[in-house]
Amino acid sequence: MRLPDDLVTPCLVVDADRMAANIAAMAALATERGLALRPHAKTHKCLPIAAQQLAAGAQGLTVATVAEAEIFAAGGADDLFVAYPIWADAARGARLAALAERVALRVGVGSAEGAAALARAVPGLEVLVEIDSGHHRTGVAPADAGAVAGAAERAGLRVRGVFTFPGHSYAPGAPGAAAADEATALAAAAESLAAAGIEPAVRSGGSTPSAAHTGAGVTELRPGVYVFGDAQQLELGTIDEGGLALVAAGTVVSRAPGRVVLDAGSKVLGADRPAWTSGFGRVPGHPDARVVALSEHHATVTWPTGPPPELGEIVPVAPNHVCAAVNLAAELVVCRDGVVVDTWPVAARGANT
Amino acid sequence: MRLPDDLVTPCLVVDADRMAANIAAMAALATERGLALRPHAKTHKCLPIAAQQLAAGAQGLTVATVAEAEIFAAGGADDLFVAYPIWADAARGARLAALAERVALRVGVGSAEGAAALARAVPGLEVLVEIDSGHHRTGVAPADAGAVAGAAERAGLRVRGVFTFPGHSYAPGAPGAAAADEATALAAAAESLAAAGIEPAVRSGGSTPSAAHTGAGVTELRPGVYVFGDAQQLELGTIDEGGLALVAAGTVVSRAPGRVVLDAGSKVLGADRPAWTSGFGRVPGHPDARVVALSEHHATVTWPTGPPPELGEIVPVAPNHVCAAVNLAAELVVCRDGVVVDTWPVAARGANT
Repeated sequence: MRLPDDLVTPCLVVDADRMAANIAAMAALATERGLALRPHAKTHKCLPIAAQQLAAGAQGLTVATVAEAEIFAAGGADDLFVAYPIWADAARGARLAALAERVALRVGVGSAEGAAALARAVPGLEVLVEIDSGHHRTGVAPADAGAVAGAAERAGLRVRGVFTFPGHSYAPGAPGAAAADEATALAAAAESLAAAGIEPAVRSGGSTPSAAHTGAGVTELRPGVYVFGDAQQLELGTIDEGGLALVAAGTVVSRAPGRVVLDAGSKVLGADRPAWTSGFGRVPGHPDARVVALSEHHATVTWPTGPPPELGEIVPVAPNHVCAAVNLAAELVVCRDGVVVDTWPVAARGANT
Repeated sequence: MRLPDDLVTPCLVVDADRMAANIAAMAALATERGLALRPHAKTHKCLPIAAQQLAAGAQGLTVATVAEAEIFAAGGADDLFVAYPIWADAARGARLAALAERVALRVGVGSAEGAAALARAVPGLEVLVEIDSGHHRTGVAPADAGAVAGAAERAGLRVRGVFTFPGHSYAPGAPGAAAADEATALAAAAESLAAAGIEPAVRSGGSTPSAAHTGAGVTELRPGVYVFGDAQQLELGTIDEGGLALVAAGTVVSRAPGRVVLDAGSKVLGADRPAWTSGFGRVPGHPDARVVALSEHHATVTWPTGPPPELGEIVPVAPNHVCAAVNLAAELVVCRDGVVVDTWPVAARGANT
C-alpha cells in the first residue's frame, strides 16, 4: 500500500481498491459455495463499507451489540443479526423492540433465561441459538441446542436455527480443523433442533481464518476481518501483504541502531497480543521488523535488516487485530494509489451497549 | 465501590469520593516532599478531573500529544507539558506555535534533529530533554543529555531541564528500584546539562507505582493512573481495593459452574495484559475470580469460590490499564454512594495526533 504524503500521524489508512477486492473475493467465495454472506460490521463500524458489502451481495449485516444495530439501521441497513447472547433488561429490551419495528432483526440466545427475558421484551422476535463449536466462550453444547430452542419457542420467540463462532480458528494451522468442528457442531445442533420439532433453517458460522474451509451443512457465513485484513491474518497465512487494506501510519520519533519508535501506540493499534503472534503488529515490506513493545503512544520496532527509517519518516504498521484498532479511531483516511480520496467516520465507534 | 442500579452496560463508573481522595493523597505526597505535581492527563482525558487536580495544587498538567494539549488548553488549563519527543512536521509545528501563544508550554526533545525541527516551528519554545532511566523506550542516556540540550539551545530552544518516565516500575517488586534508577539518571543528566553550561532547573519524573519512592534531586512528579487506580496497581500493591475509583460494569450474559461471561470485553477494558498480571482485570471483592479471556464483547471470568453471579447481574471489573479503558469510552458515569450524580465526557478520547 502506498501511503499518501500528507498524513497527520498517527492515523488509520484504508486502501480503497484493496478493500473493494477483499469484499468482492469474499462475496465470490460465498456465491460459489451457495452460502449466504452476512459480514460482521463490528470490524469496520463504517456505513460506506456496509453499503459496499450489501451492494456486493451480502444478505444482511451481523453486529455484536444493540447499539451497533441501531447505528447501522439508522444508516439504511434493513436486515441485521445481533450475534450475541443479549441479556434483555428493561432498557435494552425496549431498544430491541423499537429496532424490530424498523428492520428484519434476529438476535442470539444462549439460555432459557435469556430467551425468557428477550420474549418479554419483544414477543415473536426471531432468534438463533448460540452453540459452542470449540472456542469455549459462550454458547451451549450442540446436543443442548434443542432444549434452549424449545424453551425459546415456548416463551414466544421464533427460532430460525443455530449459530456459532469458530474462534479457535485463530491459531497457526488451526483454521481447517476449526471449520470442521464448526460444521460438525452446527449439524449436531441442527439435529437437536429437529428432534425438538423446530426447523433449523439457518446454520450460521464463519470467521475470516476459517471461511475458505467452510464445511458442508453451513448455510451462512459471518466473517468480519476479511474486509481489511491485519497482522494476525498475515501471520495465519489467511492473506498476503497484497490483501492488507488498512494500516496505521506512524511517524518515527526516536531512532537508534536497529530500532525505531513510532508515534502509533496502543491507543491506535490496540494492545491485542496472542501468544502465537510475533509482536504487536507487522510492518508491510519489512518481514524482519518486529513490533516488540507497545505503550500508549509508542511502538518500539526492531529493524534488523538495513538502516532503520529516518526520524520524521512515516512508517505503516498492520495492527494485530483490526477490529480493535478501528474502534479507537474517529475516522478512517481513505486512499487510492497513494492519494487521500475520502475520510469515513467510524460511526459505531464505542457502540458497546 | 457500590454500583448504581440503573446502569446501561457495559460502561465505566467512577466513584467521585474515592477519586477525590486519590487526588488529595497524591497532592499531599508532593507537598510533603517539596515536589511540583504535574499529573498526566492522558489517564482521565476529562476536563472536570483536570480542574480538580489543579484546584488541589497541581502546578500544571502533563499530556502525551499536541491534540491533548489543545483540548486541555481549550478547557482552561494554562500550563502544559507535552512529555513526548514530538516530531514537529509542518502541520504539528504550526499547531504547537498556536498553542505556545495561548499557554505556558513545554515540550520534550530526544534528539538534535527533533530539536531542530521544533526550533524551526516555535523559536524560543521551552523544552526538557528526555532521558532513559531504565525503561528503554525513548530518551537518551543521561550522559548524552548535555549534548542534546546544547544542540537544542543552539537551534534556538530554551532548555529548562530533563525528564524521564521510569516505566520499568511496572513489575512486581520493581517500583523502589525504578525510583532509585530515576533519581540517579536525573542527577546524571542534570550534571551533563550543567557541564554544557545549561541550568537543569527541572528534573521531572514519576509514575504511579514509583511515586511514593521518589528519590532526592527530583523536582517534579508526573503520575497519571493514581487518580483512578486499576488492576495493575492492585496487583503491584500500589493501591488496595478501597483506592479503586473506576470500574467497568458488565452484565452476566452466560453462566456455567465456576464461570461467567460478561458483556464488558476488550472494547471496554482494553487488551493490555503484561505477563506478570493474573488476567485481563480484577473483580473487586472476589480475589479468586480471574478474567481469563477477553474478546471484543466478552470477558470470561472464572469464579472458583461460591456460586457465580446470576444471568443479568451486573459485575464490576477493574481494567488492567485504566488509561486504555478510559480512551475507549465516550463518557464516564460518575457516582457517589451508589447513585449516579454526573457524566463526564472523555474530552480527549482518541486525541492521538
